[in-house]
Amino acid sequence: MSDADDGDGQELGITESKSHKPGEWYAEVVQKAELADYAPMGGFIVTRPRGYAIWERIQEHLDGWFKDSGVQNAYFPLFIPESYLEKEKDIVEGFDPEVAWVEKAGHEELEERLAVRPTSESIITPFIAQWVRSHRDLPMRLNQWCSVVRWEATDTKPFFRTKEFLWQEGHTAHATEESAWDETMTRLGQYERLYEEVMAIPGLTGRKPDHDKFPGAHTTTTIEALMPDGKSVQAGTSHYLGTSFAEAYDVTYTDEDEDERVAHTTSWGLSWRAMGALIMTHSDDQGLVLPPALAPEQVVVVPIWQEDTREEVLEYSAELAAELDEEFRVHLDDRDERNPGFKYNEWELKGVPLRIEVGPNEVEDGEATLVHRPDGENEVADRDDITGAVGDALDTVYAKLYAAAEETLEENVREAHGRNEILGTLGQHGGYVKTGWCGDEACETEIKDQIAAEIVMVPLDRDEEPVHETCGVCEEEAEETAYFAKNY
Amino acid sequence: MSDADDGDGQELGITESKSHKPGEWYAEVVQKAELADYAPMGGFIVTRPRGYAIWERIQEHLDGWFKDSGVQNAYFPLFIPESYLEKEKDIVEGFDPEVAWVEKAGHEELEERLAVRPTSESIITPFIAQWVRSHRDLPMRLNQWCSVVRWEATDTKPFFRTKEFLWQEGHTAHATEESAWDETMTRLGQYERLYEEVMAIPGLTGRKPDHDKFPGAHTTTTIEALMPDGKSVQAGTSHYLGTSFAEAYDVTYTDEDEDERVAHTTSWGLSWRAMGALIMTHSDDQGLVLPPALAPEQVVVVPIWQEDTREEVLEYSAELAAELDEEFRVHLDDRDERNPGFKYNEWELKGVPLRIEVGPNEVEDGEATLVHRPDGENEVADRDDITGAVGDALDTVYAKLYAAAEETLEENVREAHGRNEILGTLGQHGGYVKTGWCGDEACETEIKDQIAAEIVMVPLDRDEEPVHETCGVCEEEAEETAYFAKNY
Repeated sequence: MSDADDGDGQELGITESKSHKPGEWYAEVVQKAELADYAPMGGFIVTRPRGYAIWERIQEHLDGWFKDSGVQNAYFPLFIPESYLEKEKDIVEGFDPEVAWVEKAGHEELEERLAVRPTSESIITPFIAQWVRSHRDLPMRLNQWCSVVRWEATDTKPFFRTKEFLWQEGHTAHATEESAWDETMTRLGQYERLYEEVMAIPGLTGRKPDHDKFPGAHTTTTIEALMPDGKSVQAGTSHYLGTSFAEAYDVTYTDEDEDERVAHTTSWGLSWRAMGALIMTHSDDQGLVLPPALAPEQVVVVPIWQEDTREEVLEYSAELAAELDEEFRVHLDDRDERNPGFKYNEWELKGVPLRIEVGPNEVEDGEATLVHRPDGENEVADRDDITGAVGDALDTVYAKLYAAAEETLEENVREAHGRNEILGTLGQHGGYVKTGWCGDEACETEIKDQIAAEIVMVPLDRDEEPVHETCGVCEEEAEETAYFAKNY
Repeated sequence: MSDADDGDGQELGITESKSHKPGEWYAEVVQKAELADYAPMGGFIVTRPRGYAIWERIQEHLDGWFKDSGVQNAYFPLFIPESYLEKEKDIVEGFDPEVAWVEKAGHEELEERLAVRPTSESIITPFIAQWVRSHRDLPMRLNQWCSVVRWEATDTKPFFRTKEFLWQEGHTAHATEESAWDETMTRLGQYERLYEEVMAIPGLTGRKPDHDKFPGAHTTTTIEALMPDGKSVQAGTSHYLGTSFAEAYDVTYTDEDEDERVAHTTSWGLSWRAMGALIMTHSDDQGLVLPPALAPEQVVVVPIWQEDTREEVLEYSAELAAELDEEFRVHLDDRDERNPGFKYNEWELKGVPLRIEVGPNEVEDGEATLVHRPDGENEVADRDDITGAVGDALDTVYAKLYAAAEETLEENVREAHGRNEILGTLGQHGGYVKTGWCGDEACETEIKDQIAAEIVMVPLDRDEEPVHETCGVCEEEAEETAYFAKNY
């Protein structure tokens, strides 16, 4: 039996290549690393414990930051009455084609059909309207962690594209535009921090072009992450909604002079698509690669023994694992029925950032061998300072992952001008192409029709000088810089 | 403007009486303490931040215990295809009348209609079947925190009875009956611990009579809590499912001799009904009362000043609050626009377990006055040992709440024998009536038809001697002891 065979004749390791067949490779990593499986209904997945544990850690980070900055969690119903959805016309037009409807329940036809929430502005905003009376009640900041359903008729890609997905959705109301705009940027900044500090992925932040904003929003800001296959992922969005939702749902307050005013609102969301970006960015042909902050196990200790050294190696390993367990998430793999090679493969596949090998030599010399998951680099550490050494090694693993992703990003933001140059650059390299843009959607369409790339963002700062004086497509005067990319 | 008026002419305090109109009083507490509001669709509620914060703390406790005892969280789809639901006949019969169906999504009729999950055995068990191959994969213990929908056509009572509710559902598979039975009892024990240690409510544990088991279960165990109005709440249930689900969904494993065997499964759930029990048990005519472990704020500091003492009182209060904040969840209410009486009422209404009053006298003497929410008892504490004193006071608050609930429970478990005595005792006192029972559902029906009380549990131990030799209703030989009660 080979190391890559689990004894039931099924191939355990990854068989597809990330560079040659990224789609098949991704699906294989997700399933073989036991992150998710396909549900019986097309478009749905089952999130297995190893996948859900990553999502829980993402939640823990974001939720802590939210709470530290004045956000309170709440829970609103799964269903939204059709009449509520219809009150904000852009929302209903934007989401109606993707809504799942409940019309029958408990053997009865419902008087009014209920939408399974595709997003919750239209049920949350009316309650904010009820709860806000005076300027003292503002800002009001609510968030919920839940699932939403959007019936998109596209191929399922676990975490990237599923009909039901887990996310958080924040909804806030403010007395002034300035306060609401600050909120929008605070949340975008927290998403960027999650990507960079926790997920080891550098992001690009910007605005969506007007024709691609969230329905009803004044401004949609986005953080985009570049995938190794050259496509961009919209990793989180934060919307300044202006007063359109407040007007539709009547969110008013009395100011200090007892005058009635309309509030400004925001909403912002990050979904498990972030997990898709995480898996795709760092993983390789051996399987999953995770940054230490999100790994269910940060360290696996693998004892290597022969008959005559079994006892001493196991004892040394167990003590070492117990000491590390005080500081890190550690697993001691002391299974008798598997050899070390099998164990290495399994834990590489499952993405444990650091492996510690302990054999008779390590025991004799009072050492341990640390092996970094991303590149297999190994180092020998003193047993006496093992906690410090492991902490340093995990920091190094994070730094390696971030540096590699940063290099990919830096190499893949290119300038181009003129229809052919834009198409050629996108076609040859993928990544982002920066060009001057007149602001007309038709110029995006011209590129999109040829190569399925679109304007994934424009700069946040509306006053920033465009990269070119003229539009890269139509040659009219440029209003801003457009970032074209293929995307997920 | 009176202390009980918030300036908009709306009455802030509780106006209904717990003892005279428990239903109206409960609804008022829930809304005025800002725990929940009614959603626009009948049967649904919106859980506000103060309510959701309590649920988050319940989750934190249970989730920690689950993980410490081998449970892994996962997430399964919101929808279950009808054909999956139909595979276990008891499940489909048990839940079909309460299911909400999605038949149309994204403008298309679905080929197979989808149930919004009423419980997830029928989608989770088939995946356990897929993931379990050998005895080494067992026990497999999964849990998810989610919402479920059951279209019950009864009056909404926030947290007690809602068409959508939040809960956790655990699903496990085991090699042996013994292991599955241990699991069932472990989870029941954790629910009991939550009630007693965290919620300060003593529970009674038992089995449901066979005719009231979870559909398809071998045994349903329950923890029941007595409400002050004399009704019982089924506070959490843990089911030993035998092999019926494993057979329906083909959960088999190869044992150590390579023989194929059928697994034994369990499921167990606790919903936000626990929050209903919590609110109803401890609260009073001043509003919400919470045990310290679950209170969003454990301590509120209220400074009391006149013009000339303002600065010193506020400074002293702020320092005291900052010191306490290291150990407890503390709020300093230094609002200028509200007087101390208004603040006392507001924080009593919202259920803060301990109030600290700081006036010029306290500042001068280096002291602070601590006031216990449940009974208004106050004590003077030394400023120098404030952290210790507050810790002790919070322990005392918990002990007072538990003792009161325990006394109510002990006074309200009564023996009765004979139809009239059972009906009379239930009618006069409520609470639990213990009587011998032949095991025939007809004897329960006879009581139920008269007084809407039912057998809420029988003893866990099947060999326990019945309390009477004959059935309290039909006078045939008694098989076990039945606990009759009205219930939620």
